[in-house]
Amino acid sequence: MTGFKCFTELVQSLPATVPFVGPEEQERKRGEPFLARLGANESGFGPSPAVIEALAKEAPDIWKYGDSQNFDLRTALADHLGVDYANLMVGEGVDGLLGLAVRMVVSPGTPVVTSLGAYPTFNYHVAGFGGRLVTVPYREDREDLDGLLEAVLREDAPLVYLSNPDNPMGSWWEGGKVLGLADSLPETTMLVLDEAYCEFAPQGALPAIDSLLARPNVIRMRTFSKAYGLAGMRIGYAIGAPETIRTFDKIRNHFGMSRLSLVAAEAALKDQDYLRGVVADVSSARDRIAEIASASGLKALPSATNFVAIDCGRDGPFARAVLDALVYRGVFVRMPGVAPLDRCIRVSAAPAPELDAFARLLPAALDEAATRVG
Amino acid sequence: MTGFKCFTELVQSLPATVPFVGPEEQERKRGEPFLARLGANESGFGPSPAVIEALAKEAPDIWKYGDSQNFDLRTALADHLGVDYANLMVGEGVDGLLGLAVRMVVSPGTPVVTSLGAYPTFNYHVAGFGGRLVTVPYREDREDLDGLLEAVLREDAPLVYLSNPDNPMGSWWEGGKVLGLADSLPETTMLVLDEAYCEFAPQGALPAIDSLLARPNVIRMRTFSKAYGLAGMRIGYAIGAPETIRTFDKIRNHFGMSRLSLVAAEAALKDQDYLRGVVADVSSARDRIAEIASASGLKALPSATNFVAIDCGRDGPFARAVLDALVYRGVFVRMPGVAPLDRCIRVSAAPAPELDAFARLLPAALDEAATRVG
Repeated sequence: MTGFKCFTELVQSLPATVPFVGPEEQERKRGEPFLARLGANESGFGPSPAVIEALAKEAPDIWKYGDSQNFDLRTALADHLGVDYANLMVGEGVDGLLGLAVRMVVSPGTPVVTSLGAYPTFNYHVAGFGGRLVTVPYREDREDLDGLLEAVLREDAPLVYLSNPDNPMGSWWEGGKVLGLADSLPETTMLVLDEAYCEFAPQGALPAIDSLLARPNVIRMRTFSKAYGLAGMRIGYAIGAPETIRTFDKIRNHFGMSRLSLVAAEAALKDQDYLRGVVADVSSARDRIAEIASASGLKALPSATNFVAIDCGRDGPFARAVLDALVYRGVFVRMPGVAPLDRCIRVSAAPAPELDAFARLLPAALDEAATRVG
Repeated sequence: MTGFKCFTELVQSLPATVPFVGPEEQERKRGEPFLARLGANESGFGPSPAVIEALAKEAPDIWKYGDSQNFDLRTALADHLGVDYANLMVGEGVDGLLGLAVRMVVSPGTPVVTSLGAYPTFNYHVAGFGGRLVTVPYREDREDLDGLLEAVLREDAPLVYLSNPDNPMGSWWEGGKVLGLADSLPETTMLVLDEAYCEFAPQGALPAIDSLLARPNVIRMRTFSKAYGLAGMRIGYAIGAPETIRTFDKIRNHFGMSRLSLVAAEAALKDQDYLRGVVADVSSARDRIAEIASASGLKALPSATNFVAIDCGRDGPFARAVLDALVYRGVFVRMPGVAPLDRCIRVSAAPAPELDAFARLLPAALDEAATRVG
């Protein structure tokens, strides 16, 4: 026997790709840790001290399975957002929830619309369930709402993905425009609206929380991984119409949430003062990143997120060379995967020492890239 | 719009069932906490103090995503078990890994063999991918190895599930018998061997760790939820041939593990002295549970796990009434779902105060059940 022969045709056809290579893996290859961890849009500002306290308090109880209903967190989120408990589902990060949402709608051959260069993990899930990706180019570094709608109608696609604010460009649409897209979509198309970066968005960039709840064809997703500084705890949540939210119960891993993750999220949610501080720190850090870029003659794109896309002024291979030179020097950054977005590198907001390292090493990285690429 | 119309046919056909109702949910309905938590085969003996220390040490770093390769834990497990890194996959509990294994093999209509009354969460995953469950009755309270093989051959089933030691009966087979089943299976049938309770098993009840590694059609699964006392952290692992293990990479949630869960598992694994203590405590607790049963004229079944199935001496409705009466009195227990296993209630090994509560309340529960059922 040289391999099991009866994996599904679909699974046999899938590559063993990874949506992202993690920084730890890169560090193992480098043989030393990064000086600055600016590639995964984590929050180097860390979680609220109240989270650390809550973890210590809950630690003795980790021998118990977590609550399969995630009742306390869902209740706290419902209060915080002003929605019903039945409008909320909690899951193992937006990544986990995206996998479930895709599974709800996608069979082999199902067309799924997303932007060309948008979140690779969504695409990974679509491929994993045999969907056929239909991509729409960005337009002036924003996801093209009209283009997405057009592709949905053309393909009769039952699923479309939009991130607002956007990753990897940091751009955003006004809430009214997003609502306009939702209004225009056929009832037979599910909109997955990824709002992982919503806490950083300017006033008006998010549809009001109650504006989409009557639509069973919209699922908004948010996370504790970004502004709340809990990426390592894996907590995301979905907001939607009760009948759609209930569908998660058909296929989710009911006891999938770590007990510590649940209490961490509750404590983080309670400490909105801390959150506001982080959002302010991120805003300053974005300005600093723009200054660092500017000092090297590069242009930072406007951002409604906790990262900044820096236009390296040339093409993808050049930006890739800049990234490689930064990584070589100990600065972990990432970049968009496709042209023309890939003229940029993507740098996460972070505390001063990490941005100092970036500022110090960027000029040499640019020189090296220019030499290499010519 | 009264509901989204374009969920897949499969998802539309699924019930919104939950494999298990969690104790927290029961407590919310009761309006008060349980006195004794003996229903989920958790370890009330708790995790090693080294785990609590490791959690406190890692807590400030929870803003970072976990390592998508779970490298450190896989390396530690490889050392501990004497297998290669490539033989191991880490995932969000056995429940999560079971979902992935099912997804690898099951399409709508695929026959899947398991024992009638075995792990409901496996069945839930099979249903979730549209598989057709083929069940084989237990034989003398053990999973029927010959019967499972016969069903596999009859149905040409590409997937069969076996737990050894068994849940919910606590019974077990000698390792040689399990090897015999693996030897007899066609190459086109994947054996998922759930060894969640392996640490409690008597000498000889587990196939040697290297005895199944050459078979791409066997995946063994183990967990940190039981003997290691980390149910709330969600850490399971799969052991198998490298080409089979690699298949998880095609479909898993690569950044799905909590960072704290990874360090908790590493710390737990390192403290084998503590583990041995827990195993001894569990052994004494099993004896105690048997004594409690015996004092009420009931018979405890032999167990190779951290729980004991107590034969209530009559039929399913009677055992259900005993269970209800225990739950009503604040003792959380569970029971098998089908006859003839459902003549039993299932009681987890636990520290003395919880077993004291069980001992105190069982006689009244039995009286009430006798009155009710008549």
